[in-house]
Amino acid sequence: NKYTTQRSEEDEPEWLSGIFDGIATGTPMAFLVRNKDHHSTDYQALKDIFRPSHADFTYEAKYGLRDYRGGGRSSARETVARVIAGSVAEQILASHGVRIVAWVSGIGGCNFTWNNQTFSREEVDATPVRCPDEHVAAEMMRLVEQVKDEGDTVGGIITCRIDGVPVGLGEPVFDKLHAELGKAMLSINAVKGFSIGSGFEAAQMRGSQHNDAFVMEEGRMETAANFSGGIQGGISNGQPIWFQVAFKPVASIAQKQSTVNKEGKEVELEIKGRHDPCVVPRAVPIVEAMSALVLCDFYLRNKAIK
Amino acid sequence: NKYTTQRSEEDEPEWLSGIFDGIATGTPMAFLVRNKDHHSTDYQALKDIFRPSHADFTYEAKYGLRDYRGGGRSSARETVARVIAGSVAEQILASHGVRIVAWVSGIGGCNFTWNNQTFSREEVDATPVRCPDEHVAAEMMRLVEQVKDEGDTVGGIITCRIDGVPVGLGEPVFDKLHAELGKAMLSINAVKGFSIGSGFEAAQMRGSQHNDAFVMEEGRMETAANFSGGIQGGISNGQPIWFQVAFKPVASIAQKQSTVNKEGKEVELEIKGRHDPCVVPRAVPIVEAMSALVLCDFYLRNKAIK
Amino acid sequence: NKYTTQRSEEDEPEWLSGIFDGIATGTPMAFLVRNKDHHSTDYQALKDIFRPSHADFTYEAKYGLRDYRGGGRSSARETVARVIAGSVAEQILASHGVRIVAWVSGIGGCNFTWNNQTFSREEVDATPVRCPDEHVAAEMMRLVEQVKDEGDTVGGIITCRIDGVPVGLGEPVFDKLHAELGKAMLSINAVKGFSIGSGFEAAQMRGSQHNDAFVMEEGRMETAANFSGGIQGGISNGQPIWFQVAFKPVASIAQKQSTVNKEGKEVELEIKGRHDPCVVPRAVPIVEAMSALVLCDFYLRNKAIK
Amino acid sequence: NKYTTQRSEEDEPEWLSGIFDGIATGTPMAFLVRNKDHHSTDYQALKDIFRPSHADFTYEAKYGLRDYRGGGRSSARETVARVIAGSVAEQILASHGVRIVAWVSGIGGCNFTWNNQTFSREEVDATPVRCPDEHVAAEMMRLVEQVKDEGDTVGGIITCRIDGVPVGLGEPVFDKLHAELGKAMLSINAVKGFSIGSGFEAAQMRGSQHNDAFVMEEGRMETAANFSGGIQGGISNGQPIWFQVAFKPVASIAQKQSTVNKEGKEVELEIKGRHDPCVVPRAVPIVEAMSALVLCDFYLRNKAIK
Repeated sequence: NKYTTQRSEEDEPEWLSGIFDGIATGTPMAFLVRNKDHHSTDYQALKDIFRPSHADFTYEAKYGLRDYRGGGRSSARETVARVIAGSVAEQILASHGVRIVAWVSGIGGCNFTWNNQTFSREEVDATPVRCPDEHVAAEMMRLVEQVKDEGDTVGGIITCRIDGVPVGLGEPVFDKLHAELGKAMLSINAVKGFSIGSGFEAAQMRGSQHNDAFVMEEGRMETAANFSGGIQGGISNGQPIWFQVAFKPVASIAQKQSTVNKEGKEVELEIKGRHDPCVVPRAVPIVEAMSALVLCDFYLRNKAIK
Repeated sequence: NKYTTQRSEEDEPEWLSGIFDGIATGTPMAFLVRNKDHHSTDYQALKDIFRPSHADFTYEAKYGLRDYRGGGRSSARETVARVIAGSVAEQILASHGVRIVAWVSGIGGCNFTWNNQTFSREEVDATPVRCPDEHVAAEMMRLVEQVKDEGDTVGGIITCRIDGVPVGLGEPVFDKLHAELGKAMLSINAVKGFSIGSGFEAAQMRGSQHNDAFVMEEGRMETAANFSGGIQGGISNGQPIWFQVAFKPVASIAQKQSTVNKEGKEVELEIKGRHDPCVVPRAVPIVEAMSALVLCDFYLRNKAIK
Repeated sequence: NKYTTQRSEEDEPEWLSGIFDGIATGTPMAFLVRNKDHHSTDYQALKDIFRPSHADFTYEAKYGLRDYRGGGRSSARETVARVIAGSVAEQILASHGVRIVAWVSGIGGCNFTWNNQTFSREEVDATPVRCPDEHVAAEMMRLVEQVKDEGDTVGGIITCRIDGVPVGLGEPVFDKLHAELGKAMLSINAVKGFSIGSGFEAAQMRGSQHNDAFVMEEGRMETAANFSGGIQGGISNGQPIWFQVAFKPVASIAQKQSTVNKEGKEVELEIKGRHDPCVVPRAVPIVEAMSALVLCDFYLRNKAIK
Repeated sequence: NKYTTQRSEEDEPEWLSGIFDGIATGTPMAFLVRNKDHHSTDYQALKDIFRPSHADFTYEAKYGLRDYRGGGRSSARETVARVIAGSVAEQILASHGVRIVAWVSGIGGCNFTWNNQTFSREEVDATPVRCPDEHVAAEMMRLVEQVKDEGDTVGGIITCRIDGVPVGLGEPVFDKLHAELGKAMLSINAVKGFSIGSGFEAAQMRGSQHNDAFVMEEGRMETAANFSGGIQGGISNGQPIWFQVAFKPVASIAQKQSTVNKEGKEVELEIKGRHDPCVVPRAVPIVEAMSALVLCDFYLRNKAIK
């Protein structure tokens, strides 16, 4: 559809190592996904121009040259590796009861206010914008279409909830669980912000209101609220982990823009070709995949001290 | 004062290695700061109780035991090492023209709206709450006093601006500059959120509005706006880096709270001793120090490819 | 020829990333070399048997399963990646004047005594066993043929000399230059020993004899002897680096052997197919490649502190 | 005594973190051992001179300055940290049945030929030179005294045997168990060579002779010989691990030597103060400690995949 892409991507990885007779051998897995459809010629026009808010200038400055054909390390194409690797991590986590579901909670000004409920991936995927509330989803779709008509793009927010995380994941001081989750999310293209649990709201709250009182519920220790977002002192406490990720509007717009070329001349730029008005729905599986990779790493680290 | 502590802490490090005749030898520096003033007895009462929103439960669950005396790895005391290490990193960065200044931009609901101006550390330290606007600062102080009287605590926001960062710092894909800055900030006690440049605002913006047009200014390439926050594709672009860090209200409140003890019984808890109503002003040097450490690491990594 | 393989292997890597228009982009290089010629059927007979002195048992025990088809991570085939990566590292080092040449200095009992002279790779490759002394080489060839006729294999020694290494490579304490060189060599299949400079001979020497007196030669500081092997305190001193690597006879012999199968029964084993009587000449480029990778890593690490 | 030092060193560590009520907390341990007895004045004479086969020149060249007072990172004093850390690792390993014993198997030309027997640490420490054969030990002592009288030093060899290592420790390809053991040993001051199992002898052997046939013994799979040294394909196979470490004669001799000073002038050097004629016996606990650290690391890594 025009808002997102199906979970079963066309991108079939060729598995190069680490699997034998359908079973992981315990040695590193390698896979290869080729870019089928790279229209290098589209990019010739861009080879001497620094597109605004793209990585053109910084790559050129850092490395002295850049592959202007797209599909490289600064392209969202690289996230396909994250999603495939994440699917392996998810299988490991699933066997320990971990369930990761992310959804679109905001596009432009259209926001879906979450009340701590759980969703299945099917419920999320039920709308083309991957928002589990069909009314807000409809509003989001109208906005995306309008933005598209204007040759523009729009940003958004993804919320992720993770259930069944064992107590004890995360390492104190520098490698706190939410610090690594934050790094992982901020490493995704177009992400500008990350918040765990109460997030930026916490700045306006009082301790008496924010503190997660421990309570006993059916013999299990739980917290009354979960402003901590399932992590205390950098370590998972067994409550659901939840966080938010903010995406900027993608930089490739159809409108004419002014910018500067390699010779330092101001020029007009018009980017041809397909452009997504909003990539946030497509980023949902990426957020889930990065969550799985981080949690799986910590799960393995934690096993060593058990 | 009652809102913050002086920059020249009493904590004098004992330098153990890496310095000879006042000059860094190039080998690792080690220093030691002893906890002068640990009232272990205060903590005896807490040894079997899990304080809400503290790391008591998660440490106990992860490690099977915990040092309940405070001052350990989950204590804000560990940040003294960050500040001292950061001061070394800052000296290296300063010799390359990098200037890092952070300030308190929000406490509770009192916010200082920033208009891209620069501040010196002296201007920041001019108010006890480290907010460079004296009117907002006065408001913040009133709020903090009120919160203190209520035996409560309050959260806040720190904004940080870094000038003079060389173009090219940051590594693509996973170790993007803002991803590492985010991880570093999220590793500080009580931090719940991080945003770079436009941050969560970006989710509501259009590409045409958010894109940082390149312009030539006095022969230098600059960006018209700086929603990117000085980082594009994970690499510094020479524009000022700016980001925001959200702090929750600290968990140690003077009010009575209900919680659970090690035997799984619900109990009442009253934490004795000194408590800070708002630690956000004290976190300003920590944010600056972690910024310096991250930038210095990337500066060294980048040198290898120059 | 029957003693070794040509340096221009048939194995043409397919470059997947990191190169654009024939120039390294500064981002990671990935390449793929497929196993053209894997006779999986040969290996069916071996799937339940642990070959003596192979990795069959240890992989099975560690991972619970193993890919018995050969060509995996315990196969010498993996060294093709080392050689290709090493060739990139060598290009970087060569531009800084570093020259790496290794040769076969012993096969079975046939030894070539080295007197600190330098050889070119052409001189080394002039004999099929890669020993630069043609008389010793002839003796080695006779031995290898005899061993082959007996359905047996034989071990050997490779000596490597590296000229033009800049002063200052290597990191104190744990990451000493020769410690990393040693690890790199010991990671090559069939390697059982590593010695730097005087090596095991040093155990029999006196300090007065072993100490490398500094002398001035044409205005440059040199050492009279070079028992240190070009490394002092773990850091290169500008003198030639030289070391030796001991290889065991490869485990795949044509003779009948007794061993144990997965059910714990003692069985007779006869390994079919081609077998090399002596792989030491083929390991010369691998030793050179691993040297290049280690030196290049330290060159980059050292740049950061310059 | 004059040949070695007691295992119970005077060096009492001050434990800074990681231990609470005598129990490891699971968080990093830090300890501090101060140099009690540093005669800095002895070193004043050496501050502008590069001692032969010391790290004086390389440190000066790499860092631009060096701490000439001794006791720094290039001093054997740093090994105290290895021994203390190793004792912690040994406690973990011992609880899993691992036993590490090293001894002096050669000093100068005096060698003790080992026949695969086991020794206790008491048996090793029974002679002042830590050689478990009292006749060879007596010979070694005579040699060391003679060397001392000559103002000279002498090198030697340490052999280490490790029993009870679980099957499966070690990681394929680059982090092979013996590669990390080799790196660890080569990182010890004065070490010039490392060999695992058959070592350099393997270069002279045939495969039919070297291969470790698997046999069943009392229902357990063992190897008939153990030329592999307990490691196959980089992974422990449950047989005893054994290796040898070659030490050069220490560079600090009492005899007059010629060398070069910082101005590039050739000068005569006479090093004053205490000097050990042979440090090999003192290195036995260091070899054991580094073995314990390497094995413990791999033990923890391996737990993650179990």
